[in-house]
Amino acid sequence: MNALREDERLDYLPFGQLKIIQSKTVFAFSLDAVLLAQFAYLPLQKGKVMDLCAGNGAIPLMLSTRTKAAIEGVEIQQRLYDMAVRSVRLNHKEGQIKMHHLDLREAPAHFEPGSYDVVTCNPPYLPVQSGQKNVNEHYAIARHELYCTLDDVMAVAATLLRPKGRLALVHRPSRLADIFGLMRRYRLEPKRMCLVYPKIDKPANMVLVEGMKDGQPDLRLLPPLIAYTPDNEYTADLKQIYFGEQTLV
Amino acid sequence: MNALREDERLDYLPFGQLKIIQSKTVFAFSLDAVLLAQFAYLPLQKGKVMDLCAGNGAIPLMLSTRTKAAIEGVEIQQRLYDMAVRSVRLNHKEGQIKMHHLDLREAPAHFEPGSYDVVTCNPPYLPVQSGQKNVNEHYAIARHELYCTLDDVMAVAATLLRPKGRLALVHRPSRLADIFGLMRRYRLEPKRMCLVYPKIDKPANMVLVEGMKDGQPDLRLLPPLIAYTPDNEYTADLKQIYFGEQTLV
Repeated sequence: MNALREDERLDYLPFGQLKIIQSKTVFAFSLDAVLLAQFAYLPLQKGKVMDLCAGNGAIPLMLSTRTKAAIEGVEIQQRLYDMAVRSVRLNHKEGQIKMHHLDLREAPAHFEPGSYDVVTCNPPYLPVQSGQKNVNEHYAIARHELYCTLDDVMAVAATLLRPKGRLALVHRPSRLADIFGLMRRYRLEPKRMCLVYPKIDKPANMVLVEGMKDGQPDLRLLPPLIAYTPDNEYTADLKQIYFGEQTLV
Repeated sequence: MNALREDERLDYLPFGQLKIIQSKTVFAFSLDAVLLAQFAYLPLQKGKVMDLCAGNGAIPLMLSTRTKAAIEGVEIQQRLYDMAVRSVRLNHKEGQIKMHHLDLREAPAHFEPGSYDVVTCNPPYLPVQSGQKNVNEHYAIARHELYCTLDDVMAVAATLLRPKGRLALVHRPSRLADIFGLMRRYRLEPKRMCLVYPKIDKPANMVLVEGMKDGQPDLRLLPPLIAYTPDNEYTADLKQIYFGEQTLV
């Protein structure tokens, strides 16, 4: 039942001792997903969490090690959804994680509006027209805003979240003005932000942002997160987060 | 003519070998001003630069060491304006720097709209109602949005700047969503941003942002600027900028 397909491999997630089915021809999680899973505020005991653009389920799986809340994931690609469902089973997480094969733009019709405590999303970063599109369709959909734009993500998150519920998002810093603009348009007030710098002397290349539904304006910046040492190893700070010894909350 | 008043002292600006009249009962420049003066893009040979909320003239004076362009400054407080005028004279910069005693909200009527290459501003950071207001009126006006709000600054900058002209601003990171929102409202597209962290393990407490009049969306993040070492000394990076060996452009 959990047999791997030909191009698939079984990896470990970096914390929580969970396995995940990956494929270099389809999708594999990256640092972004791990940091988002450690950045999101989560209720500990109960509540509802939704991961949008869930891919092969890396974020729902990692979140499940931090909370007992019910976690759902929405993924538009049948193949990735299928990998995620099998990974959930493989880790015996069917009681906590439910995956949905769905275009997220249809989510408001499928889920109860205003009922989620937390929405997470590691969306496609690139506008449709930008850069070289990946030849591989799976990667193209994961990276370019082909099936969902940042506006779609915000609109859906705002609909699903309860008042004071939180959206946690990872994105490129070059889109920060768009991110804040859309958050405010959808009444998701920016409350917390962490910039990730590849090295201490390099520009940030990743940003983690939290918005609170109908929150009061008061953005809190986290310390800088530097990913690599000058010798191209993970920094001590990053290792602590990556391997689950501490969160970014 | 340049005699100091009783509560005044003569300091050096940290780079450019310029003197400046300061007063602990009225105003003294701080790190924010120095970093803004090193962050602003400047035309080298000619052009027009306007500093809003110019205080005792620290920013116009520092900018004058980086460009031959004509520099103007607007300051609402008579006493600070007077200190700035005397400091300009003291440094023989009357040919390059002209100070104006003016409420910046009246600036559009006094200066040629669309004619400035660069506008700089180190505005009051705090909303009128927030925190403890300084008992000292001079400091209260410099720190709280009593006579000018961020909205006023953006509106005036947008009016004064030529197309593709740039606004350089220093502010608190907690106001980032306001900053980006207002920039876009006034068609000052965020193009460049640097977060300043007091220490490597502390949240950012200052942000430098550049907006371009009618620019294309594409925000570039600078490397993190860490101000102090764990021993509470300026870091090597900060020293280089503070003492004028390099800019943040």
